[in-house]
Amino acid sequence: MRRWNGWGDEEDREELGAELLAFLREHIGPGRPREDLSLAQALAAVPPPRLPTSTRFSQDSELRLRHARGQSFADYLALRSGDPGPLAEAVALPGTHEETAEALAEAGRLGAIVIAYGGGTSVAGQLQVPRGERPVLNISLARMNRLLGIDERAQLARFGAGTPGPQIEAQLRGYRALLGHFPQSYRHSTLGGWVMTRASGQQSLRYGSIGQLFEGGRLITPGGELSFGGTPAAGSGPDLRELLLGSQGRLGLLTEVSVRIRGLPEHEDFHAVFFPDWENALEAARSIAQAELPLSMLRLSNELETETRMRRSGHAQSIKWLQRYLGMRGVGGGQCMMLFGASGSLAGVRRMRREALALAKRWQGVHVGKLIGQSWRKNRFRSPLLRNALWEQGYAADCVASTVNWPAATGLMRAVERAAREALAAMGERVHVCTHLSQVGRQGCSLCTSLVWPLQAEREADLALWQRLRLATAEATHAHGGSLSHQQAPAPGGDEFGLRLLRAAAAALDPGQMMNPGKLF
Amino acid sequence: MRRWNGWGDEEDREELGAELLAFLREHIGPGRPREDLSLAQALAAVPPPRLPTSTRFSQDSELRLRHARGQSFADYLALRSGDPGPLAEAVALPGTHEETAEALAEAGRLGAIVIAYGGGTSVAGQLQVPRGERPVLNISLARMNRLLGIDERAQLARFGAGTPGPQIEAQLRGYRALLGHFPQSYRHSTLGGWVMTRASGQQSLRYGSIGQLFEGGRLITPGGELSFGGTPAAGSGPDLRELLLGSQGRLGLLTEVSVRIRGLPEHEDFHAVFFPDWENALEAARSIAQAELPLSMLRLSNELETETRMRRSGHAQSIKWLQRYLGMRGVGGGQCMMLFGASGSLAGVRRMRREALALAKRWQGVHVGKLIGQSWRKNRFRSPLLRNALWEQGYAADCVASTVNWPAATGLMRAVERAAREALAAMGERVHVCTHLSQVGRQGCSLCTSLVWPLQAEREADLALWQRLRLATAEATHAHGGSLSHQQAPAPGGDEFGLRLLRAAAAALDPGQMMNPGKLF
Repeated sequence: MRRWNGWGDEEDREELGAELLAFLREHIGPGRPREDLSLAQALAAVPPPRLPTSTRFSQDSELRLRHARGQSFADYLALRSGDPGPLAEAVALPGTHEETAEALAEAGRLGAIVIAYGGGTSVAGQLQVPRGERPVLNISLARMNRLLGIDERAQLARFGAGTPGPQIEAQLRGYRALLGHFPQSYRHSTLGGWVMTRASGQQSLRYGSIGQLFEGGRLITPGGELSFGGTPAAGSGPDLRELLLGSQGRLGLLTEVSVRIRGLPEHEDFHAVFFPDWENALEAARSIAQAELPLSMLRLSNELETETRMRRSGHAQSIKWLQRYLGMRGVGGGQCMMLFGASGSLAGVRRMRREALALAKRWQGVHVGKLIGQSWRKNRFRSPLLRNALWEQGYAADCVASTVNWPAATGLMRAVERAAREALAAMGERVHVCTHLSQVGRQGCSLCTSLVWPLQAEREADLALWQRLRLATAEATHAHGGSLSHQQAPAPGGDEFGLRLLRAAAAALDPGQMMNPGKLF
Repeated sequence: MRRWNGWGDEEDREELGAELLAFLREHIGPGRPREDLSLAQALAAVPPPRLPTSTRFSQDSELRLRHARGQSFADYLALRSGDPGPLAEAVALPGTHEETAEALAEAGRLGAIVIAYGGGTSVAGQLQVPRGERPVLNISLARMNRLLGIDERAQLARFGAGTPGPQIEAQLRGYRALLGHFPQSYRHSTLGGWVMTRASGQQSLRYGSIGQLFEGGRLITPGGELSFGGTPAAGSGPDLRELLLGSQGRLGLLTEVSVRIRGLPEHEDFHAVFFPDWENALEAARSIAQAELPLSMLRLSNELETETRMRRSGHAQSIKWLQRYLGMRGVGGGQCMMLFGASGSLAGVRRMRREALALAKRWQGVHVGKLIGQSWRKNRFRSPLLRNALWEQGYAADCVASTVNWPAATGLMRAVERAAREALAAMGERVHVCTHLSQVGRQGCSLCTSLVWPLQAEREADLALWQRLRLATAEATHAHGGSLSHQQAPAPGGDEFGLRLLRAAAAALDPGQMMNPGKLF
């Protein structure tokens, strides 16, 4: 059963460990734990629905509550410590494309706003139900979670849009195939949600981001239906798929998604390399990306993230030996850890490893083997559970993600971290702030800055402090040549002018403004 | 000097050769040469401009005539044998982004329609001047042909949108860099034109199509200006670049284009492999594409294209020896030739060649070395000149390009060829029709079918015959699971519904319908 007020399933727990907790206390002071609102309390406060009953929608209180929010910090705070905010009047769980069309038609007759719901892991606030006169309905794609067809010769598979990551890969495994899309939210997020948020995965370096994997599908809009795909992109006009990618449900309901699949790799390796400082590590990451080795992933932690990961590992004795070895090899304080992975034939994996390590060595990187990489692989989808563990200890956690070209990456990273520290210092608080780099490409990379800070006495103060952090880090990102990801930020080139264009496109498909109006554009 | 009524520069000539000519005569009967309209005759017929003179636009008759048409068969026919059709009233040749904006503003004041002009190589009829009350102005980007900036660490370069292929590569060579975009029109087509037509190049398998190389730029629309790019694509909303790709000038004037560049490859090889039949050759092409070897190109000729290429080579004695060798290796009549190329480090090129040849061998492919590939490389941009040579011998030539998934490729190819033959048979003519496959990917490929048929007694009959061919091949393409490229065809998923969406986007940027209205959508 999914946790109603936090990440993951109820039985999923992640411990902070004594060493990390001591490190946090020393850095940002003691946490301030607070009592959570219980599910029973939250259910007691659910208002009665404002719509007549319908066979296509359920008005069950718990179902409505469980579809109320996503996983942004504001969502998390709302569910943990107070009022979940307005709820949809009812939730539809269609099982087919046709049932989805019927649910949308009924929503239209009721004059309702529709919010499409996939895995509920949105961190951009897109699932939040607006307060207002118009009733809101959730249409969840969760029951549309099956493989609908596969063409092995064309390497294409078609799934229900509500299929979550593990069920995609499980259904493909029988064909010795994989999709290879592994965002951090993999266990719960869905194929349709990945398209609607233009998601990247941890191994997108090899398998491509969802934009490259998304081949086509079926979209239901208030103005009619649209089919995409079926042939390789032709040189004939704009590609409408691209308008859908990242459109956050604003253009319609995606019911079926066709994706490009691959054969299962014969072999997969993950390696750790330590660098004496950030500057060398960054140059190594850039060299490896620009050499276009077909690695499956590359991730680089900055100084404090490297230290935090060491303290989180729970293997104090092994870390001591590792540090002794690194010290002998000239890597001491200020060290930065890179993880990279390679998938493919055994010979191909060996070759990529050799070439990547040769480039790393040029920038003073010291290879320490596969153990840390294996541990990363095992725990790769568990990090979001840390938010639950931190909360229980009285700490808040969030992250800020951006993309940036290589020449501006270091400046941006330092500026965002400084902005976060200064914003909290002005409020008399300290923040633990560290960054890793991922999604490397020839032009640049993504930066993901993690923030941990002590909870305040009450929810409004937490929200104010978080908004201050968001504003400060967003300003620093823009001032230093970056673009925010995962935000209610406009699209690339999306100044007021680009937004006008997107609004016009949405209005053509959705003249009555039914689809999640007010979000994104 | 560019030829005013055909492909290429005036001094560029390509001969058919006696053997190919005899082969054509035998296959489709003798050609029927016709006298061309001369430049002087065409100039004498240019009507006076309907607009007052302006410092921003030239009304020179020859300039207007030279911007009247593109390179579609209808364009070619119009210029060679009759009336070039309506001309723009004047042509602007701005040198900067600002001058382009001024020219567009002036066009707006004059109530004119604007057709953007790059290299004039459009084969989709987008350059044709509409007949009507509203005056038409051409804005040519030809003077904006320089490298404006380069960031070697981010592997980005910014060019004027009117820069043609050879000037792009020449300006990058000083930085030991290349773009790697080599469409057949490379010598004359421009960067902005590639974006506006969503072009692919002969080596897009390695370097990516223009959609992957296009990083950003500046667009001037009647409603205002828009800037794109500057950071890697972020997970935040639809990517407006994609709406521009393939928009055929309908959304605005692109003045500057930023592209992703690479280091010059150390080594480059092209190899020829012969297969005993099409079925084996196609499976080899699919295997190589799905193995994701980073080859630079792969091109496969069907039976008749292979034979035609042999007869065109002009090396009858060598071909005889080649055939004797192939016969000994089990490759006889019905043979199909594959060319593939690899670029990169010497070791990388050798590895790719080894892996590609191993896969080819599984499908009975016989490697015949690098000579044919070298000759292809040398002549790769000269094929369009054959249209001129054929015309002089009294033959018309055109091609039909489509994309298709692997499982449908053979059926589509046979159906398109059959449809062309039957369409002409119904009119009492024969057509030489052969196909090659290129732009291979994991899902499918492009098919390009070449058509040669005898000219009729007069232009109207030629046009009618060509339209019949187009219709028949387009119907066969759609009936067999393909998508047409390079056509006035709607976008992927672009039924009436998709077109509505594109029209809405265009109307948001261009409320007065200035930008090439009526084309594409």
